Amino acid sequence: MSTIDRNIIVLNRPQMGENIGAVARAMANFSLTQLRIVNPRDGWPNQSAIKTASGAFDFIKPTEIFDSLNDALADIHYSFATTARNRDMNKLEFTPQSAVAKAQSFNKDEKVAFVFGQERTGLENDEIASCHALLTIPTHPHFSSLNLGQSVLVLAYALSEFTVDTPENINQDLASLQEFNGMFERLQNSLDDYNFFKEPNLRPKTLRNIKNMLLRADLSPQEVKTMHGIISALTKGESS
Amino acid sequence: MSTIDRNIIVLNRPQMGENIGAVARAMANFSLTQLRIVNPRDGWPNQSAIKTASGAFDFIKPTEIFDSLNDALADIHYSFATTARNRDMNKLEFTPQSAVAKAQSFNKDEKVAFVFGQERTGLENDEIASCHALLTIPTHPHFSSLNLGQSVLVLAYALSEFTVDTPENINQDLASLQEFNGMFERLQNSLDDYNFFKEPNLRPKTLRNIKNMLLRADLSPQEVKTMHGIISALTKGESS
Repeated sequence: MSTIDRNIIVLNRPQMGENIGAVARAMANFSLTQLRIVNPRDGWPNQSAIKTASGAFDFIKPTEIFDSLNDALADIHYSFATTARNRDMNKLEFTPQSAVAKAQSFNKDEKVAFVFGQERTGLENDEIASCHALLTIPTHPHFSSLNLGQSVLVLAYALSEFTVDTPENINQDLASLQEFNGMFERLQNSLDDYNFFKEPNLRPKTLRNIKNMLLRADLSPQEVKTMHGIISALTKGESS
Repeated sequence: MSTIDRNIIVLNRPQMGENIGAVARAMANFSLTQLRIVNPRDGWPNQSAIKTASGAFDFIKPTEIFDSLNDALADIHYSFATTARNRDMNKLEFTPQSAVAKAQSFNKDEKVAFVFGQERTGLENDEIASCHALLTIPTHPHFSSLNLGQSVLVLAYALSEFTVDTPENINQDLASLQEFNGMFERLQNSLDDYNFFKEPNLRPKTLRNIKNMLLRADLSPQEVKTMHGIISALTKGESS
């Protein structure tokens, strides 16, 4: 896998075909090849996407369609949730530049997703919580509107700045999100079984916080196993 | 003069007001303030430029209009002629990234122009010859079309990379090591109580690995409390 092919653009519930086409153009302009779409409003394939793309789909791999964001991220090792400024989330915040530098630090066969929310509302908090980190394009605080195609264009350009291969890095392997989520679900079940959540209405937010905290640790597959072991030990094997 | 104000976008004989408006938007998005236009086809001011700009002209200084490219460049210290690939010119060729680095190397009161040709044909050879160097956005060789607004967007973003503060910041307080270690010791005692360490000789190394993993998450004081709560819940309060 080349350093370009491992970078994946994920569009979550996009609405207008024209915007998907603009994304494809921006990707082809800067040689990105991997597009995943979660629940496109108007289905797929989409004629207005193809028309707006002006042939760009010929330069990217076949678009992959998913039913849920979690499915789209299952084999991803690190994911950036693109957001506007000031999301109150305990996650690392990256610019395109620093996100690309972060992505370059991973092993070459580890997949990196850049997740974009729907045009009007962006990503919801739960969707953001499913990603490892935030990515914000640092625009003027009072004139910040970038449409979907423009956001992907800036990111794709930033990624293209690094097309020169870098030396192997010393970082550890990252667990895939599927591995991570398997562990997290188990933790969640154990916390439910052991009445961790005293106030049910705080449960979703607390779970998001715990997930954010654990995602921030960039767990390796071995560390995910260690977490499983810790949960097993502490629950004395009583929880599955 | 700030480092932003000394960067000047020059549009040479632009045709469509819509494109001028898109340029203004891209500039405002990334806090560029100086726009010069040489012989706009439809005169100035231009209503469709203003309409497309969606208020962007409020964020940039009054647009300056010139009769010739040479006039527009008269007080400029260094100028980049943006072109598509492979102009056969004996000039230095820059990418946005290297052009911005070059611009940063000048004194702060030296003005730098980024010159964009008309939509259809770009800059003519004589116009390119009036500039110091070439600037080419490195796009896919077979899918390279960027319109005027997109080209300025990429350049404006590249210029903004040098004004962003820190590459990544975490929006939370860090727990002190005393807080962290209190939690970690408790986890360690619980793991001992619940026979987590099957092989005693591996215990020190495993504990180090778990500590590394948790330290990597940059826990806040609140998150340390959450960890206490998780340990309490899973051990049903049996471990201290």
